[in-house]
Amino acid sequence: MPAHHFSEIHTIPFYECDVNNRITIPMLINILILASEHQNEKLGVDQRYLIDKYGIGWVVTSYSIHITKLPQKDMKVEMTTRGTSYNRYFAYREFWLHDEAGNELVKVESIWALMDEKARKITAIADDVIAPYQSEKVRRIPRLPRPDKIEETSQATAKQYRVRWSDIDFNGHVNNSRYPEWMLDALPMTFLNAHEPANIDIRFENEVTYGSMVTSSVVVDSSDNDRIKTVHDITSNDVLSATASIIWKESKAKGND
Amino acid sequence: MPAHHFSEIHTIPFYECDVNNRITIPMLINILILASEHQNEKLGVDQRYLIDKYGIGWVVTSYSIHITKLPQKDMKVEMTTRGTSYNRYFAYREFWLHDEAGNELVKVESIWALMDEKARKITAIADDVIAPYQSEKVRRIPRLPRPDKIEETSQATAKQYRVRWSDIDFNGHVNNSRYPEWMLDALPMTFLNAHEPANIDIRFENEVTYGSMVTSSVVVDSSDNDRIKTVHDITSNDVLSATASIIWKESKAKGND
Repeated sequence: MPAHHFSEIHTIPFYECDVNNRITIPMLINILILASEHQNEKLGVDQRYLIDKYGIGWVVTSYSIHITKLPQKDMKVEMTTRGTSYNRYFAYREFWLHDEAGNELVKVESIWALMDEKARKITAIADDVIAPYQSEKVRRIPRLPRPDKIEETSQATAKQYRVRWSDIDFNGHVNNSRYPEWMLDALPMTFLNAHEPANIDIRFENEVTYGSMVTSSVVVDSSDNDRIKTVHDITSNDVLSATASIIWKESKAKGND
Repeated sequence: MPAHHFSEIHTIPFYECDVNNRITIPMLINILILASEHQNEKLGVDQRYLIDKYGIGWVVTSYSIHITKLPQKDMKVEMTTRGTSYNRYFAYREFWLHDEAGNELVKVESIWALMDEKARKITAIADDVIAPYQSEKVRRIPRLPRPDKIEETSQATAKQYRVRWSDIDFNGHVNNSRYPEWMLDALPMTFLNAHEPANIDIRFENEVTYGSMVTSSVVVDSSDNDRIKTVHDITSNDVLSATASIIWKESKAKGND
């Protein structure tokens, strides 16, 4: 039996969009997670159930995001997800975003683990937690590309952020969508207005907590003439919190194209 | 003829909610503005039309927000708005949020003006811009309560914020919902987790721009035993940007009550 697909339609409001009327990367992540939470609910294994019954919760360790075209304000998109495969400790989940004509806009691969909320440690994936997804049990789940590292010798630019109350999720942790927000904001406005991401590989290492200061560093690598790459990291008290590599393309003119 | 009402249904996703699973104040403002934008479109006088034809756009000068109960994650709410009345320079718009049983959750009064985008000056409200709303033409529109001022002698606490790329709206200005975000974040997490706003009066004075540093100051006034009031201002380079008074009530226990 193949893994269960789950789909739903979402209309993108202005407040999920950037200055160019495209969905922001943090909101792209949020709406896809929404679809997976709705699948979890439908299959009877939502967050509240996992916490109440087992004291565990899913945490994402990495995303690989392939963007053909970022949807714009007022567009209706179809969000689809499935829990494709898993092994003893990790689950591989895929997401798709399609326009109304069925064209693929975004494809996301992701790796998840189950965390014991009290011990703050990864636990093995129990069969009855994963069974409803009809995920394939495999020896090895796909490896997502590792983001590049910022070389110690490179000239990084950096901005500082304090973790705000509004960054904290219902589970008491920093919402995962904040890390890419800090990463992107470290780039100049002129760059962000003129470019859009084509590929994002992001990896989460250590969580930051309310009130902490984080440093978002970026190096722009334009050694390849055909494409611009940026390499990012987020650190807090010299502890690495997240890393990412982003491939950019030039942005279309502003407006509802 | 009474002013046109416009209503639509919205389901609140997790990413519009705070740590207590209640909709955040910034998102409350965003979803209500969404309803008014949809009314503008329906009546043929949306933002793009106003800019293209007249070079003007609506700007809000103040909100008075009365909260009976903040809706929670996954709740279906009905957002309603009408352009109630106007005079030569100002328009009075009302908003309501109701639950599925028809109970009023939130009522918002607001004052708007039309700004010439090039001159950055308020312009008189032309008849053909306002006519579609069937708003009542009046000599005086209702006065919203003025937020208190922070006394020079009082012990304010303050936090600093840099205006981020993600704070900038499609119209190139800071999204109005950021001012209450900065205001609330100036309060301690323990306070925010244990209280929720019952009434917010907020007034916008001067816009801040990308890259600016803003200071969010707050004084907690608990001189009245029955209720806690906080008084807020946002300044940038010693210029007043926004002020607010918030009346608080104790928050229900965390969860989906």
